[in-house]
Amino acid sequence: MKKLTTVSLKLILWLSLSIAATTQSAFAQDSALGLSAGSIEHAISLRDTAMQGSMAYDIVESLTTEVGPRLAGTEAEARARDWAVAKLSALGFENVRVEPFTIPGWERGTESAELLAPYPQPLSLTTLGGSVATPDAGIEADVVFFPTLTDLEAAAAGSLNGKIAFVSHAMQKTQNGSSYGFHGRLRRSGASIAASKGAIAILIRSIGTDSHRMPHTGSMRYDPEVKKIPAAALSNPDADQLERIHARGKTMRVSLNVQPTFTGESTTGNVIVDIRGTEAPEEVVIIGGHLDSWDLGTGAIDDGAGVAIATAAAKLILDNGRRPKRSIRLILWGAEEVGLLGGFAYLERHKKDLENQIIGTESDFGAGKIWQLNSQVSEEAQPLVNKMAELLAPIGIAPGSSDSPGAGPDLTPLVRAGMPSLRLNQDGNDYFDLHHTADDTLDKINPHDLDQNVAAFAVFAWLAADTDLRFKTD
Amino acid sequence: MKKLTTVSLKLILWLSLSIAATTQSAFAQDSALGLSAGSIEHAISLRDTAMQGSMAYDIVESLTTEVGPRLAGTEAEARARDWAVAKLSALGFENVRVEPFTIPGWERGTESAELLAPYPQPLSLTTLGGSVATPDAGIEADVVFFPTLTDLEAAAAGSLNGKIAFVSHAMQKTQNGSSYGFHGRLRRSGASIAASKGAIAILIRSIGTDSHRMPHTGSMRYDPEVKKIPAAALSNPDADQLERIHARGKTMRVSLNVQPTFTGESTTGNVIVDIRGTEAPEEVVIIGGHLDSWDLGTGAIDDGAGVAIATAAAKLILDNGRRPKRSIRLILWGAEEVGLLGGFAYLERHKKDLENQIIGTESDFGAGKIWQLNSQVSEEAQPLVNKMAELLAPIGIAPGSSDSPGAGPDLTPLVRAGMPSLRLNQDGNDYFDLHHTADDTLDKINPHDLDQNVAAFAVFAWLAADTDLRFKTD
Repeated sequence: MKKLTTVSLKLILWLSLSIAATTQSAFAQDSALGLSAGSIEHAISLRDTAMQGSMAYDIVESLTTEVGPRLAGTEAEARARDWAVAKLSALGFENVRVEPFTIPGWERGTESAELLAPYPQPLSLTTLGGSVATPDAGIEADVVFFPTLTDLEAAAAGSLNGKIAFVSHAMQKTQNGSSYGFHGRLRRSGASIAASKGAIAILIRSIGTDSHRMPHTGSMRYDPEVKKIPAAALSNPDADQLERIHARGKTMRVSLNVQPTFTGESTTGNVIVDIRGTEAPEEVVIIGGHLDSWDLGTGAIDDGAGVAIATAAAKLILDNGRRPKRSIRLILWGAEEVGLLGGFAYLERHKKDLENQIIGTESDFGAGKIWQLNSQVSEEAQPLVNKMAELLAPIGIAPGSSDSPGAGPDLTPLVRAGMPSLRLNQDGNDYFDLHHTADDTLDKINPHDLDQNVAAFAVFAWLAADTDLRFKTD
Repeated sequence: MKKLTTVSLKLILWLSLSIAATTQSAFAQDSALGLSAGSIEHAISLRDTAMQGSMAYDIVESLTTEVGPRLAGTEAEARARDWAVAKLSALGFENVRVEPFTIPGWERGTESAELLAPYPQPLSLTTLGGSVATPDAGIEADVVFFPTLTDLEAAAAGSLNGKIAFVSHAMQKTQNGSSYGFHGRLRRSGASIAASKGAIAILIRSIGTDSHRMPHTGSMRYDPEVKKIPAAALSNPDADQLERIHARGKTMRVSLNVQPTFTGESTTGNVIVDIRGTEAPEEVVIIGGHLDSWDLGTGAIDDGAGVAIATAAAKLILDNGRRPKRSIRLILWGAEEVGLLGGFAYLERHKKDLENQIIGTESDFGAGKIWQLNSQVSEEAQPLVNKMAELLAPIGIAPGSSDSPGAGPDLTPLVRAGMPSLRLNQDGNDYFDLHHTADDTLDKINPHDLDQNVAAFAVFAWLAADTDLRFKTD
């Protein structure tokens, strides 16, 4: 063995002191953020482990293959809950439970439409969720064309008597999905607006940004004061076709037959599991995605991906031994698509325990990479959110607004009730190409993009749960 | 007026002589290729005019909008013929005529399938053209999985008794479409091969290269010695799904209900018009595309684009005043999709006049740019084909094989009967993403790419018709 020289010994001493100083300084940072010692290092380790490959893709592969479509309130959604309980238990989570609730059931039936005149041809369309049916024999009527919802709103009362309204406003792509709110109003409210003018049905251009023969479904609601009329969405190429025919100055006549049914009170539920905190287990940091999907596709991007991301993040934390001070609660929500009903049911059930719902975030915007972190927390907790942003910057996530409430759809009821929120915004440029269509299938998901999401969810959940800081402003 | 100097006069004299020499040399080239004087310059002018914007897009817009889907033998295809006669007449062509013939009619009915076990979910599929129906109530059977057609062929007789065969061989993209022949055999012949082993139905992975929930139809045939069984294609994502389930070692059970009908003897026809030649009008150079389409989409790329390209090329030549020596015959073929029946009917009708079918080419490979010129002509005519290639090189077309018979599907009967051929190969990398699906709609077409096709067709048609050279080897 070679003898150590004085110089070598001095070097070792210097290095040891440096490392100790670094560690001490790191632990001081932990402490300043209310974290246990080494907590930030643990978050970094979780992040880096996820980036090297998470199990998220396997989870969404399993859900979309072994359950497939899972419309809220159906036996398919019940199978998804069974799948979730079995999967979470197999992953080693303890005390997996379902919080059941009931919803008004709706199921799609047959649906078809044809352009009868001036140029007979079939149309590709799908019934909007919650729509009433046509009579069994369908309806047949002339079409009145409106470029936008505003134009429909401007139509005179009675001007659509006996007609089918068609509104063709085309949604545009945005990174943050903000166009969905604006254009989505046509889907949500168009039927009653058209009915108030006398229309007997409404067709809308799909609220979607693709150019495939893939109509987009999604939920709609009726104004209780107005007659309920059937509502359906045409695929974008079909809407283009009707626009071209309208531009020729021709009257279009359409036959429409949609046969959805209202199936009465139906059971659904939220599937819940906790990673129990060591110091304040009653306080929960919520992550999740929603288990239900529309019935047309297998719900891979909406929201199998979210289920997979949140579950894989929780599993990563579970497997890394260390436990946070607060509990991390994973919620796989039921009945999101039909009105955030899982979120409302959870609020109702836990409203006496609101103070313990510390903060939360949901993954429900597809399978793209996260590019931005938005939040709304107390001044006290802002430095911790800044630290999260700092740890996520190397994986492509930039801090956005610190005054942006919103944690994902299913947490909306809790956030409205005062829960602080954080959102990890995914790139949504392509999300509405697939959203609510038959084309929402596993092949659209890039496993590596999911890993980046898991990394961000793990960093958030770990740090939010391991701090003593209060996220809520008093 | 400024007086001309001696130097200026000398310059003018020199320039005049140069121009005359150039012209003379150009005309010598024309003459050497059997062309009328100035013919090559005319071809260049046609090319450049087309590249600045042809009317091809307007034509395919009109056909796909005003007719839409036009399955061979149906009243929709009859409307397409009416459209063609009216359109060609309106464009100024004289003596537009229909050569009618009859075909065995087949129409798609309802079609549905469900995976019943192990993971119940609907499947997206479409009946293959020419398939028999299931019983009214449908069939229900276990599925036997085969990765390739070769594996199906290797199955023992009787091994599929009472089962549904599923063959999942995935087609790959190629620029020249050559993979279609190999993979397409599964669609064309799979049913009888499966039936010969005892299968009661066959499901195939779509012969298509997309990953959308868009099953691809297309024609199939039965071996007359074997029991006819229903045949349908799953979309690629559905085939992926079944592969994943098969990989789990689970037995799949499927219900299938397809209700196509054989509609008996049905009328179809080829729509024909000539630009009459000045010296040998009985000799015809054929260009065209096919009017019929599958019923799922509006037949924009298959083959509205081909109709539009060939028609716009003929119109360009028509409008440029000068007439070629031979006639240019534009044929908008009927009933291509169901077995090149328009091509066979034309051969039957014109078989006594075969020698006057000088050469031809059809556009039937989508709306992508042409990248290659293949041909099979006499040695005498090869220099003219070389000249065509030279004129097309500036627009991105390279000479390919000069020993490659083939002029497009509808000309196959004529080429087999000895007609010389030339093919302007379009880039087919994306063609089978849309081919034979509901997604074959106008929005998939780039007008500028059509212009390049029109330029190439105009150059070919003009030069082939304006030469005295014989394309056929004696």
